[in-house]
Amino acid sequence: MIGVFDSGLGGLTVVKELLKRLPNYKILYFGDTARTPYGTKSPETVCKYAIENTRFLLARGAKIIVVACHTVSSTSIPILRESFPDVPFFEVVTPSFKKALRLTKNKKIGLIGTRTTVESGIYQRLFSEADPEIKLYTNPAPLLVPLIEEGWLKKPETRSIVKKYLIPLKMRGIDTLILACTHYPLLKKIIAEKAGKRVRLVDPSEEVAIEVAEYLSRQENVAGVVEPNGEPEVWVSDITPNFERIAGMFLNRKISLKKFSW
Amino acid sequence: MIGVFDSGLGGLTVVKELLKRLPNYKILYFGDTARTPYGTKSPETVCKYAIENTRFLLARGAKIIVVACHTVSSTSIPILRESFPDVPFFEVVTPSFKKALRLTKNKKIGLIGTRTTVESGIYQRLFSEADPEIKLYTNPAPLLVPLIEEGWLKKPETRSIVKKYLIPLKMRGIDTLILACTHYPLLKKIIAEKAGKRVRLVDPSEEVAIEVAEYLSRQENVAGVVEPNGEPEVWVSDITPNFERIAGMFLNRKISLKKFSW
Repeated sequence: MIGVFDSGLGGLTVVKELLKRLPNYKILYFGDTARTPYGTKSPETVCKYAIENTRFLLARGAKIIVVACHTVSSTSIPILRESFPDVPFFEVVTPSFKKALRLTKNKKIGLIGTRTTVESGIYQRLFSEADPEIKLYTNPAPLLVPLIEEGWLKKPETRSIVKKYLIPLKMRGIDTLILACTHYPLLKKIIAEKAGKRVRLVDPSEEVAIEVAEYLSRQENVAGVVEPNGEPEVWVSDITPNFERIAGMFLNRKISLKKFSW
Repeated sequence: MIGVFDSGLGGLTVVKELLKRLPNYKILYFGDTARTPYGTKSPETVCKYAIENTRFLLARGAKIIVVACHTVSSTSIPILRESFPDVPFFEVVTPSFKKALRLTKNKKIGLIGTRTTVESGIYQRLFSEADPEIKLYTNPAPLLVPLIEEGWLKKPETRSIVKKYLIPLKMRGIDTLILACTHYPLLKKIIAEKAGKRVRLVDPSEEVAIEVAEYLSRQENVAGVVEPNGEPEVWVSDITPNFERIAGMFLNRKISLKKFSW
């Protein structure tokens, strides 16, 4: 069983990509909707929540953990690995970094994400170590998550706000843009348009799913029982007023949620 | 000591109003920044958090509790009163309702708030009981809190979004508008402009502070020690990356935060 968690329902974009590539694995998802969002909270608090979420997934039988949340992936992975030394963890930062490194030609990479992700500085460290010539330009884009959760995917205000966030990155001449938040792929079209034709986008959901699929192809049975065409099992810490609409937006199918709270 | 709590730092607008009217009382504030916002969460989860916040304030010596959060005031007051029968609770819904009732002439009242506040239906019940002729028109305005927390108080996108939320209410010919969220007074100027000259605004922060001041003028010493010109004591459940800027915006003065977490 593959365990996946996120601060809310945005991580269902990762589930969607996993289902495409790994239809035979049972997926167990946990969305911490009672404490969402994480991207405006401190690394300490995010880390504490990440440990609790992992513990829940393991207790319910997950054999590997996919951290679908960019904020958690940016701040908490070393502590998660230390706290659960026998568990294989996958996160969204490393595969996104690798993909951007392969894509860029002019070595100017842009990144939008939550404030906590951007302030973590993790991408800066990874790129500096890999290639000191790479210039990374970041801009926190905190309004995109609420706009997406409201379903304002095509509204003029959303277009205008996306443009505002991208201008400083565009001015630097980036040729690659990392969408460092599970929500952002839902605005891919507008982001691509506002970023301009020469900018290629990195979608972390795809990248992490590819990495998990590769790992599982080498390590059969590590994720436990293989169940052909099983529905993902989706747990949340709060059944919020909006959940059906939001879940549908991310996963493109109806799901039933189960609630767990501490 | 007057205990005040909110989902985050927005309730400092209530503290500001209390300080104006009650400079001699010590104020103890708790902002649940580790779990903010409440307005997108279910009434059950909000209620659970409200009980925990109240318990914290009482344990630190609060003698009366002011619920600065509109979402909590709309969903959790009966259970709070039942759980803490000896504690006087003040909330933001009743005084806002009373003020709107006094202000309206054409009996058409508008309300913007979080989704959970609007869906609670509490204002509808209060107005129906008070005067069946009153028509209440509501519109959830969930993007205003993130826009305010980003400090986008004067940006064109904010103006445009405010306008969008108010159009359906304006079309009904309202003459009174309840700002049913502690954050909204920060956008009072834009809201007033977009609502139009004939619409009068109800600011819950002012109304609840007036009510608390009246109560304390009748019941001396109920809120414990009177400390002239004491600074408010501000606790939060997470020291978030943005807290200084946000706290300053709501309280107009520098404050030092202390962290408490469960």
